[in-house]
Amino acid sequence: MEGALSTAEGVAARLTAWRQRVEQALDAALPAEEAWPATIHRAVRYSLFAGGKRLRPLLVLAAAEAVGAPEPEALAFACAVEMIHTYSLIHDDLPAMDNDDLRRGKPTSHKVFGEAIAILAGDALLTRAFHLLAEVPAEATAEALRRRLRASALLGEACGTGGLIGGQVLDLESEGQDVDAATLERLHRAKTGALLGACVLAPAALAEAGPEDTQRLQRFARAAGLAFQVVDDVLDATEGDAQLGKTAGKDRAAGKATYVRVHGLEAARALAARLREEALQAVAPFGERGAPLAALGRMMVDRRA
Amino acid sequence: MEGALSTAEGVAARLTAWRQRVEQALDAALPAEEAWPATIHRAVRYSLFAGGKRLRPLLVLAAAEAVGAPEPEALAFACAVEMIHTYSLIHDDLPAMDNDDLRRGKPTSHKVFGEAIAILAGDALLTRAFHLLAEVPAEATAEALRRRLRASALLGEACGTGGLIGGQVLDLESEGQDVDAATLERLHRAKTGALLGACVLAPAALAEAGPEDTQRLQRFARAAGLAFQVVDDVLDATEGDAQLGKTAGKDRAAGKATYVRVHGLEAARALAARLREEALQAVAPFGERGAPLAALGRMMVDRRA
Repeated sequence: MEGALSTAEGVAARLTAWRQRVEQALDAALPAEEAWPATIHRAVRYSLFAGGKRLRPLLVLAAAEAVGAPEPEALAFACAVEMIHTYSLIHDDLPAMDNDDLRRGKPTSHKVFGEAIAILAGDALLTRAFHLLAEVPAEATAEALRRRLRASALLGEACGTGGLIGGQVLDLESEGQDVDAATLERLHRAKTGALLGACVLAPAALAEAGPEDTQRLQRFARAAGLAFQVVDDVLDATEGDAQLGKTAGKDRAAGKATYVRVHGLEAARALAARLREEALQAVAPFGERGAPLAALGRMMVDRRA
Repeated sequence: MEGALSTAEGVAARLTAWRQRVEQALDAALPAEEAWPATIHRAVRYSLFAGGKRLRPLLVLAAAEAVGAPEPEALAFACAVEMIHTYSLIHDDLPAMDNDDLRRGKPTSHKVFGEAIAILAGDALLTRAFHLLAEVPAEATAEALRRRLRASALLGEACGTGGLIGGQVLDLESEGQDVDAATLERLHRAKTGALLGACVLAPAALAEAGPEDTQRLQRFARAAGLAFQVVDDVLDATEGDAQLGKTAGKDRAAGKATYVRVHGLEAARALAARLREEALQAVAPFGERGAPLAALGRMMVDRRA
């Protein structure tokens, strides 16, 4: 039904096709921009369709491919994850949090719609993500219902106070502090790692994958997720605003804990390279079916923005 | 197993017992205050255990009693609804929204913990509400799983942009505007009515109640919910801070749309009395099993704070 994954071109074509499917599914999962009350739907769509790379939804679909999870189930989860990710960006950018004016090269939500609507747009995306996962086809089997609930619980765990939210708290509390390497890793495991982990663990739950495959996915997500963050810190220290589409050097200026600050620039680069290898090795046993995941793992590290 | 509902004392005792069960279940559903990261758990518990009347969870349990929904299912939903309600209060009180310093006689979350943590505490409660509903006993039947997902979808609908969030948007947009009676009703149906509706419709879904019983509950929720809001506006216009536990006269001062402003004080009081009767009539056919609902309906109107 879909092109081969034996060549780099085949993998790239698959990722492009998945990205289109995600865009369509996200669009279909939200009320139209003019639906009442229009302000909030404009704000929600402004941030959700701001040109994000759709990394997390693609990780969901790639992990589903690796372990054989049903694509419609994976697609619903992929949309929920992207909504969660977008909500967290909108709230993180608020003046009371990181106070960012620029995101993906565009003014942040509160700059365009004001703080009140930005807070509500984040709330709306968070709500819709879980709402979407509660919508199941009438003919779904008991097992399908149970898997859906399991994936939903995984998402709740990942974006709760032990994950996404806890990471943001630690990030705020560590500003201007002298943070050691262990705290920094804990921060990122919670703030970005937990949601990235859910991206690959939910497909494992949806496919009822065995423990070996699940562990492979978990190792991939941990290594690639950490590498992604290290590269973020390296780029923040070395690139300009225009390249990043957000305010460069901001983390340093805010006295934030970064890998470059804790380890130095060269050691941070070496760490990213080591984690990249670890991620690729973890999914090598999947063979061709793991090729999209491996491609995403490379993209997470070999980037300029 | 529980006391009779044939006397006012029996009904009062039942409501007290339910309130205790809700307190215990909410406590059990959240990480301990000292769990990492402690700041956020302190903030979450500060608002969730701030002495709220637990009106919404009690409505859930009373509606479950009226239609015969399983109590453990109703209790989980009751906790989720109270978390949602509390998140909405925390976010509504923020400086960017209604900028309130006082809630239930205590300083609001952002006054105690700062804006960033208040935003995150709201996010955490919203997340945990849906997470809780995704946690099901391993032995749950297919039908139980389906009902749980239906209740979860009802909640998502009620607190999305067509409900709770949409109502808050309309509330913000109507500040200082000359609002007519129809807009005012639409505002409150969304802002408070949708969630109150879910409180009684979810038990109907959990019990797979017939259309007649479901309509009775719906009529009750619409009438009692609107009456509740009208009484809120009357109290805001006539009572002092100490009595209300929040800043009195604030809605008027902010140029907010209120029933007193649109209809006048006497007409607002008459409207509340008429809606009260409508609510009580709607649940009269349930007989004794509807007595707790009727008692809650009366409490929603006959109050001084």
